[in-house]
Amino acid sequence: MAPKGKNSFTLKTPKGTKDWSGPDALLRDNIFSTITNVFKRHGGMALDTPVFELREILAGKYGEDSKLIYDLQDQGGEICSLRYDLTVPFARWLAMNPDVRNIKRYHLAKVYRRDQPAMTKGRMREFYQCDFDIAGAKFDPMVADSEVLKIVTEVFEDLGWKGKYTIKVNHRKILDGLFEVCGVPQDKIRTISSAVDKLDKLTWEDVRKEMVDEKGLDGAVADSIQTYVVRKGGRDLLESLLTDEKLTANASAKAGLDDMALLLEYLEDFGVVDKISFDMSLARGLDYYTGLIYEVITEGSAPATATSAPEAQALQRSSKKDKKVDPDEDRSNDPSVGVGSVAAGGRYDDLVGMFSPKAQIPCVGVSFGVDRIFSITKARMQRESNANALRSSEVDVYVMAFGGKGFTGLLKERMQICRSLWEAGIKAEFSYKVKPKLPAQFKAAETNGIPFAVILGEDELAAGQVRVKEMGLPDGHPEKEGVLVDVDSLTTEIKQRLEKKASGADAPAEAPVDEPADLAQKVKDLL
Amino acid sequence: MAPKGKNSFTLKTPKGTKDWSGPDALLRDNIFSTITNVFKRHGGMALDTPVFELREILAGKYGEDSKLIYDLQDQGGEICSLRYDLTVPFARWLAMNPDVRNIKRYHLAKVYRRDQPAMTKGRMREFYQCDFDIAGAKFDPMVADSEVLKIVTEVFEDLGWKGKYTIKVNHRKILDGLFEVCGVPQDKIRTISSAVDKLDKLTWEDVRKEMVDEKGLDGAVADSIQTYVVRKGGRDLLESLLTDEKLTANASAKAGLDDMALLLEYLEDFGVVDKISFDMSLARGLDYYTGLIYEVITEGSAPATATSAPEAQALQRSSKKDKKVDPDEDRSNDPSVGVGSVAAGGRYDDLVGMFSPKAQIPCVGVSFGVDRIFSITKARMQRESNANALRSSEVDVYVMAFGGKGFTGLLKERMQICRSLWEAGIKAEFSYKVKPKLPAQFKAAETNGIPFAVILGEDELAAGQVRVKEMGLPDGHPEKEGVLVDVDSLTTEIKQRLEKKASGADAPAEAPVDEPADLAQKVKDLL
Repeated sequence: MAPKGKNSFTLKTPKGTKDWSGPDALLRDNIFSTITNVFKRHGGMALDTPVFELREILAGKYGEDSKLIYDLQDQGGEICSLRYDLTVPFARWLAMNPDVRNIKRYHLAKVYRRDQPAMTKGRMREFYQCDFDIAGAKFDPMVADSEVLKIVTEVFEDLGWKGKYTIKVNHRKILDGLFEVCGVPQDKIRTISSAVDKLDKLTWEDVRKEMVDEKGLDGAVADSIQTYVVRKGGRDLLESLLTDEKLTANASAKAGLDDMALLLEYLEDFGVVDKISFDMSLARGLDYYTGLIYEVITEGSAPATATSAPEAQALQRSSKKDKKVDPDEDRSNDPSVGVGSVAAGGRYDDLVGMFSPKAQIPCVGVSFGVDRIFSITKARMQRESNANALRSSEVDVYVMAFGGKGFTGLLKERMQICRSLWEAGIKAEFSYKVKPKLPAQFKAAETNGIPFAVILGEDELAAGQVRVKEMGLPDGHPEKEGVLVDVDSLTTEIKQRLEKKASGADAPAEAPVDEPADLAQKVKDLL
Repeated sequence: MAPKGKNSFTLKTPKGTKDWSGPDALLRDNIFSTITNVFKRHGGMALDTPVFELREILAGKYGEDSKLIYDLQDQGGEICSLRYDLTVPFARWLAMNPDVRNIKRYHLAKVYRRDQPAMTKGRMREFYQCDFDIAGAKFDPMVADSEVLKIVTEVFEDLGWKGKYTIKVNHRKILDGLFEVCGVPQDKIRTISSAVDKLDKLTWEDVRKEMVDEKGLDGAVADSIQTYVVRKGGRDLLESLLTDEKLTANASAKAGLDDMALLLEYLEDFGVVDKISFDMSLARGLDYYTGLIYEVITEGSAPATATSAPEAQALQRSSKKDKKVDPDEDRSNDPSVGVGSVAAGGRYDDLVGMFSPKAQIPCVGVSFGVDRIFSITKARMQRESNANALRSSEVDVYVMAFGGKGFTGLLKERMQICRSLWEAGIKAEFSYKVKPKLPAQFKAAETNGIPFAVILGEDELAAGQVRVKEMGLPDGHPEKEGVLVDVDSLTTEIKQRLEKKASGADAPAEAPVDEPADLAQKVKDLL
């Protein structure tokens, strides 16, 4: 057995991981339910896979990133690794279940990457992904793809990011086609594609340098690529590309452009075409995409120099705390700036077939980066509200007691009142002391931001009554000292008051500054 | 990079793990929310810790079971292991957060044990635990302990297990005291205790044999232990023990008995004393318990010979499929029978102090074994309902189209109708084919047990109308063919019909046999 040495522990979580608790955990749970509700609205089935897979399942799926996979130790038996994403386990599940030939599935779970962490920007070694994917062999082109993008907009609308996000889209076949047209040798297409993908962080000059100096591309070919990849737009860009005879003569590019035309039409029907930016520099790193690709960016995603959004500034401050920032310094090359995309995905028609040649099921899907969404949402809440008073739990009622000389503490009575509240579905707590002091009980209620106190006194109890007090009422409010309520009607009374409070019917014109904020309500207001 | 060989994969999940999907995943999610709601009602704060911990954090906490811990491979950097339970990470978190001195926290997450799996009984290598713990230094005795047991009853009541479970309780101090009183040598107390703990599976004769033959205990001492550990009861047992002068003269036993008296009093106030069985054979394996201990058993927990409950029989059948069972065979010694306890816990006052001598925070908590609860609930549902029709997702409406010669498929109209349903919060789906066939659309709706179809036809649409049809209505029902509804009032109409259906106002006296069952409703009815 290992030694029990009392002081030999390093009290920390492993590098790149963290504990989630209190208001942060509550806010993140709210984000999870918002996303899950959208997924369910679109008919998603929940899938839960093991946190580790046989190592051979993951092998050969992630290109260079395979070195970031966490392996389990060989303790005799199977060789396993922690999952790197949720897409490969989904493809493995599809290959294992040949009776499932079309499915919409969602999966919210942690994934693992042995990467250099940057915690303040939501870049961690253990982090959550929320995935929605549609698999099906006999669908007509771009219909499911359009629904996935509709889902993306619903998630961000439901999160309250109205107008604060853009979905960049592109198509692997257009990219492959334009590289061919420009004269990129076949064996350089992938590496040139990944250079192009850096255009959201680097200038064209830097990217060109990488192509020509590092990757040996002909300068004229690079210049020809430039005429395409710096372009972004909507239907206008598509129409202009469709008149480009060199491009449309290429079969791959033509197929991609036709898909894109269909997509824009369907997104019109879904009413979300204004959220889309057709961005020819978007390439995405993963090997397995075969068609449409997309990435959602928001104010905090881009390098801070490209935006004056407060999010970006806040995030930037927190990650560069002790560094003097030169406003003229070009930091677009600074990897410490920007949280990156908040959601991304695309079509991957060949991945399932890698597991089982008989199971060629085309798929399209999206993955939401909840930790990044959390960072941005929290920064926004901190600007807009008093973040110090955020709650850790959602208790409605604190049951307390007071009395003069000979005060017994009324423990059993507090327990009985709590019991009746719990059994009526009301969230309640009480002090675990036999004779708690009144100020300590009030402090506990205030610290947790609990909206109501039920106060037990011996005289009132003898008359079958207790006092119900709404916490944080301003001086002079007629109910500042609470109201007496019959014990028999207590749960009904509390339920009515909670409903009234939730609907905001009784909200004071201006909340007094010392009133603890109600996170659940704030989140509702903000999201 | 690993080879991409197409046929070299073993398509399976690692040993002792499984995928969760479809109706099983939905039922398990329902169980999770039931449990989480109880935890929140009692003021629980959500805590989420990393799936792996520094190995030294786990070392020396689990006694002999430490060999079951999964280790991560040393890939350079820190040495980590997968968590074995949620209690040690909670204690580590408490020790790391010295400002938190009293807290109620809950945690639903997977834990990992390299044990011999027995999947059909919910014994797996990766499985969920749902934990609620109360930590606090200055609480009065047994108040928090009582609330934890109250929580246990609320969880099983809310799961619909009315009267089908028993909470066995005992106290480590009583056990330690009685072993002293009976003359067990100090160095044998732990091993004798673990022998006693097997009395739920073995006969006294077998346990005595283990004590005397294997563990070298004096036979007379064993016999003296027997006079205590075979006893179970309630207040009667407590009162009889309190008159046992030998026992009450032992300081440890006396302290335990006093706690137990207080506990029974408080549980009376919480109205749950009838769910408790004071069982002197309960010892619990883990090292870290220091006071009250408990374990929840149900019909499937015990060896099947001890009960004729259909659960136990069903579970037994599934685990012994191919074995002829001899009805006279004593299988109480057969470890393949019974799912074991469905929840367990106790008081552990010294665990946090093992991480930080300054942080001596007493704790008490409980852990629910969701996979076992799932197995039992599912077996019950399969007996009580048509399990074949259980749903995989919760879609409310399938939007379909039909038409005669020259039918265009009405794809864009189906998309627009879906859009308006989604934006009204209604769960809806449609076919991804441009020109889907009507029978295929009906089949998709039926297979998924979707309650309503919205049917688009060109003529009706021209008149601004669509047909709303409730699925599975019996022949002769006035609305069997659906009703025409204005497109403008479609979402309102659907919402009203969904509410009506949920409230059961329109339920036919006898559901037609071919109507797909609604799991959500079934779960609600059963839980």
